[in-house]
Amino acid sequence: MVVVVDKNLPQERVEKIIAELNRYGFDVHKSTGEKYIILGALGVQPGFDIRKIKMLEGVVDVFRITEPYKLASRRFKDEKTIIKVNDIEIGGDEIIIIAGPCAVENENQIMKLAEVVKNNGAKILRGGAFKPRTSPYSFQGLGEEGLKLLRQAGDSFGLSVITEIIELSHFELIEKYTDIFQVGSRNMYNYPLLKILGTSRKPVMLKRGMSATIDEWLMSAEYILSGGNPNVILCERGIRTFDTSLRNTFDISAIVSVKDKTHLPVCADPSHAIGYRDKIIPMARAAVAAGTDALMIEVHHDPDNALSDGPQALLPEQFSELMKQIKEIAKVIEKKF
Amino acid sequence: MVVVVDKNLPQERVEKIIAELNRYGFDVHKSTGEKYIILGALGVQPGFDIRKIKMLEGVVDVFRITEPYKLASRRFKDEKTIIKVNDIEIGGDEIIIIAGPCAVENENQIMKLAEVVKNNGAKILRGGAFKPRTSPYSFQGLGEEGLKLLRQAGDSFGLSVITEIIELSHFELIEKYTDIFQVGSRNMYNYPLLKILGTSRKPVMLKRGMSATIDEWLMSAEYILSGGNPNVILCERGIRTFDTSLRNTFDISAIVSVKDKTHLPVCADPSHAIGYRDKIIPMARAAVAAGTDALMIEVHHDPDNALSDGPQALLPEQFSELMKQIKEIAKVIEKKF
Amino acid sequence: MVVVVDKNLPQERVEKIIAELNRYGFDVHKSTGEKYIILGALGVQPGFDIRKIKMLEGVVDVFRITEPYKLASRRFKDEKTIIKVNDIEIGGDEIIIIAGPCAVENENQIMKLAEVVKNNGAKILRGGAFKPRTSPYSFQGLGEEGLKLLRQAGDSFGLSVITEIIELSHFELIEKYTDIFQVGSRNMYNYPLLKILGTSRKPVMLKRGMSATIDEWLMSAEYILSGGNPNVILCERGIRTFDTSLRNTFDISAIVSVKDKTHLPVCADPSHAIGYRDKIIPMARAAVAAGTDALMIEVHHDPDNALSDGPQALLPEQFSELMKQIKEIAKVIEKKF
Amino acid sequence: MVVVVDKNLPQERVEKIIAELNRYGFDVHKSTGEKYIILGALGVQPGFDIRKIKMLEGVVDVFRITEPYKLASRRFKDEKTIIKVNDIEIGGDEIIIIAGPCAVENENQIMKLAEVVKNNGAKILRGGAFKPRTSPYSFQGLGEEGLKLLRQAGDSFGLSVITEIIELSHFELIEKYTDIFQVGSRNMYNYPLLKILGTSRKPVMLKRGMSATIDEWLMSAEYILSGGNPNVILCERGIRTFDTSLRNTFDISAIVSVKDKTHLPVCADPSHAIGYRDKIIPMARAAVAAGTDALMIEVHHDPDNALSDGPQALLPEQFSELMKQIKEIAKVIEKKF
Repeated sequence: MVVVVDKNLPQERVEKIIAELNRYGFDVHKSTGEKYIILGALGVQPGFDIRKIKMLEGVVDVFRITEPYKLASRRFKDEKTIIKVNDIEIGGDEIIIIAGPCAVENENQIMKLAEVVKNNGAKILRGGAFKPRTSPYSFQGLGEEGLKLLRQAGDSFGLSVITEIIELSHFELIEKYTDIFQVGSRNMYNYPLLKILGTSRKPVMLKRGMSATIDEWLMSAEYILSGGNPNVILCERGIRTFDTSLRNTFDISAIVSVKDKTHLPVCADPSHAIGYRDKIIPMARAAVAAGTDALMIEVHHDPDNALSDGPQALLPEQFSELMKQIKEIAKVIEKKF
Repeated sequence: MVVVVDKNLPQERVEKIIAELNRYGFDVHKSTGEKYIILGALGVQPGFDIRKIKMLEGVVDVFRITEPYKLASRRFKDEKTIIKVNDIEIGGDEIIIIAGPCAVENENQIMKLAEVVKNNGAKILRGGAFKPRTSPYSFQGLGEEGLKLLRQAGDSFGLSVITEIIELSHFELIEKYTDIFQVGSRNMYNYPLLKILGTSRKPVMLKRGMSATIDEWLMSAEYILSGGNPNVILCERGIRTFDTSLRNTFDISAIVSVKDKTHLPVCADPSHAIGYRDKIIPMARAAVAAGTDALMIEVHHDPDNALSDGPQALLPEQFSELMKQIKEIAKVIEKKF
Repeated sequence: MVVVVDKNLPQERVEKIIAELNRYGFDVHKSTGEKYIILGALGVQPGFDIRKIKMLEGVVDVFRITEPYKLASRRFKDEKTIIKVNDIEIGGDEIIIIAGPCAVENENQIMKLAEVVKNNGAKILRGGAFKPRTSPYSFQGLGEEGLKLLRQAGDSFGLSVITEIIELSHFELIEKYTDIFQVGSRNMYNYPLLKILGTSRKPVMLKRGMSATIDEWLMSAEYILSGGNPNVILCERGIRTFDTSLRNTFDISAIVSVKDKTHLPVCADPSHAIGYRDKIIPMARAAVAAGTDALMIEVHHDPDNALSDGPQALLPEQFSELMKQIKEIAKVIEKKF
Repeated sequence: MVVVVDKNLPQERVEKIIAELNRYGFDVHKSTGEKYIILGALGVQPGFDIRKIKMLEGVVDVFRITEPYKLASRRFKDEKTIIKVNDIEIGGDEIIIIAGPCAVENENQIMKLAEVVKNNGAKILRGGAFKPRTSPYSFQGLGEEGLKLLRQAGDSFGLSVITEIIELSHFELIEKYTDIFQVGSRNMYNYPLLKILGTSRKPVMLKRGMSATIDEWLMSAEYILSGGNPNVILCERGIRTFDTSLRNTFDISAIVSVKDKTHLPVCADPSHAIGYRDKIIPMARAAVAAGTDALMIEVHHDPDNALSDGPQALLPEQFSELMKQIKEIAKVIEKKF
């Protein structure tokens, strides 16, 4: 922490600030300039409330040096984290495709879509069984039945599976069936849920909250990591901005800036970000061109009758065409697919 | 729902759009203008995904007429809801003050503060026992011990009590001790939690999410109301904007605009919104001048040593002075305090 | 500027960073902690691009100590600035009311409204002659004719006048007629316009840009101040947030936080912020309760036929009632009105 | 415009609303549903203030059908606009590269950079002569001298040129030298400037305001188009969001969504959006993969000593490498480069 103090502050007031910093456990180095005294308050105090110092008389400004997270930071671990799911590696040279329907609806649907995504190069099958819906009157998912069908479809086609957890009491049930837990945007700040996921060793895909900063996103990752689970995949899924032409604003630059701060791999989810089928294709290409490690795409063979988010599901032939384009773009940036 | 269609669309395409609307259960009235055909799609379909119509060929735009919520709406119930907590009425002519520390820390602290707030006119004592903290390394609350101390302090001074619930597995425990449940900003989208609170008859104070629109806030209230609990108090606690001088931006205009849409009472929480003691006082006055039904204020007799959010706690003498000012402002707008 | 450097950086790299800072004219003080080296880079370089240092190898973070503005800062001048307009003082103990129509429409209208606002205690008459309209197809103001009518109405009723400047070529013309220049939200970043206003000695009311931070707002004030004109009044007029129920979000907390950083007086304009007549009244009260120095209110005797912004104009009787309420609230905070 | 009225409103009140709509020049079609009456108010009234209707008693909601702009809309002209600049076409099959320094600094610099960008495939040379700077203490550009040098460098290497206009009094001067006018983000709402650019026939590149919606951006384009200049190129240059890791958030999805609404071509400016050299490269690739018509890139051979925005200038060898990657990505989406 760096504390900037007014040069004209009486000596005893400066001493008082230093004493206060010492009391909180910081070592203090002082440099005196022309207009300000700079106090370097050294020592790691994660979670320290800097307002306590900001409010002291004569303090001009306070800056946090250490990031509020540690395990998630590249300062702590510079080498890229590669996450293994069965025989797949997320975070390495290969772009991993995660695809499938928004929600598991019935056996026929999930089996058909598993086949479609497998045939086009996806490695992981997605499908929601517990859905967090804005309206209490909307379809809320099939529950355990959905988990079983997802597992069965994954196993039938040699795909790993991912599904969303919205409530910690479902933890043991979902862990039994899934390869990867997905935490949705609305639960990025759900600390009790993040804590329990820290006790698992199965990977967790943590979506960014819709107005979260990069630091807050990594702070939520820290909750999982500090619980003992090192397998966190970050997922950018669109943020809220003032323009409402699309469902959200797909923040592709976050893919690049988060990698500057963390060693964790990043996935991009243009389906939720954009919300309209035809515009998802160019955005998926863009995410790959920007260097995402993984891509999550919703696909449905009959989106008009899908029970949730049909408008943002690609048709199988669109998905197939997109995969061909991605293969070409992957070459340009020396990635495999 | 109103569907705007291009006037030049071939007749059979228009028929197809109408057929699609019928299939989803809407009655359709058609008016033809100079450049557009307007289809009034009548019928209530809460949770209907309007993108399904927006994406049809020839559709220029689609507007939702009915709000996505019903029970929370003034269109459904125009008369103001008054919520009774023991002998207190929230939403009536009296401005209700809720005050106390951020977190219950020990018996001495909560008893002392209960006395302070009681003596200055507060009717409800606040105090957190389970704290949602951004950092996994921060104080997380005393748990059940905190609930017991809060109840004891409330009972000793004739104050009702309010405390936060952050996880649905705590529901029965907290219901045993509290008069009002508080749902924090980070849990406004935690639907499983909202659903279980819908099964209680104890009032729920629902804080606005930090980037939530007014409609989303009311949609979350709808989750509680539709579960059977009519006792929802809304609470504005600051939103995120681009300026970071203060902790958040206290959206006082939301107090006025939400009352335009709902019959539910509104509380204002300037402490979390502002984050710095000295600036909370003018903002609390402003909230009262704008017509809030209730005001929640954090108070601490030793904020430098508080275990959470000390910088935003008023000192007892500041709280006392604020209460005097509020009494005068209440008169101007013909409210009691 | 404070530069945080990785402790493990080889000595010669640290020297290189210091040399670079010296080259840019900074004196450097170095303190070495457990994990970081902190370089205090002392010296004032307004406009220095800190990215130049941020990008050097081994630099962990860079913080600006000195604010990017100087003349606008309370660090530079702690005593409150009081701005004199004829016999009025803005920034002192009295709350100054500025009122009138959005635009000057004709002689009858502006004379009638000047009388209304004068009789209810306003000291300054507002009225636009050059209007910045979102649509090229909307009424753009009467131009010089409007300026003349405004001046005449002000003189007839002993009111000072304020009008908006949208383009620097109008500077001499407007200066001839007005007592105060108004710079609208859309021109807060119009630097050529701000520069020419710096050459005047007439006060300038600078509205906050609709997404501007407090620091950017003061930076724009700095453009005027550094040109030699010390008479800047800041005006909060609503910011853009995600909720669109009202025209904008009236950021009352900005009134409080900007006063923490600057000595300049602050005006509040709830009319533009809110956009709907009935909701302006409680927000105007709130701005006064929060401590604004001045209040700008749009009034119209026939708003249904107003040429611009009729929906946000108070009716004369509403204005009169509001002024009575403000008188009472002013007493609570020991201000005159 | 669609006006939704409460079904229970007395017949004479409904008539009054209809009369009011007629008075404003709208034809009204009425359809009566179970809970609402829908009034289709037909007729084009660009710039009509819908609040006038929203505030009438019994009106539940009002929606605008016609977009607030006309000439910029795909509903008005569906065929893509291709803009010719000398022998270049912007908006066709070829991706046009615009490159050069942030500001023209001296002859040597601009000649050297013109050569670099020409050799790597750019068609248009950029370089600022009048710079809008946040700080009054920063370098403000070389003025006419800069324009001359830019023109000379362009002519020497067979490049068209683009430069920024920040003030309408510079219009004739700049028109003499440039091929394309650039309007910066801070001037997107500068209506007098847009109006004068409408009188030129030289193309105008209109950057999106940093918090502007897509509709507002097109509304500003409408100011130029309605003045008689059909040659508008839109330019996405990053928007403001809550995360401040990068200079701005590069809104690549805007490239896709704006094309849904307009026939005008789109350019992407990752340099200003991102602000840090190394991260501009992946973002430039992403913009091309998303389908931008043109790309604007800042390049400098000695960025450490650049007079403005050095940190966001690519080095010549980085620019060269980027151009190679873009050539490959262009093939994937069937564009030429």
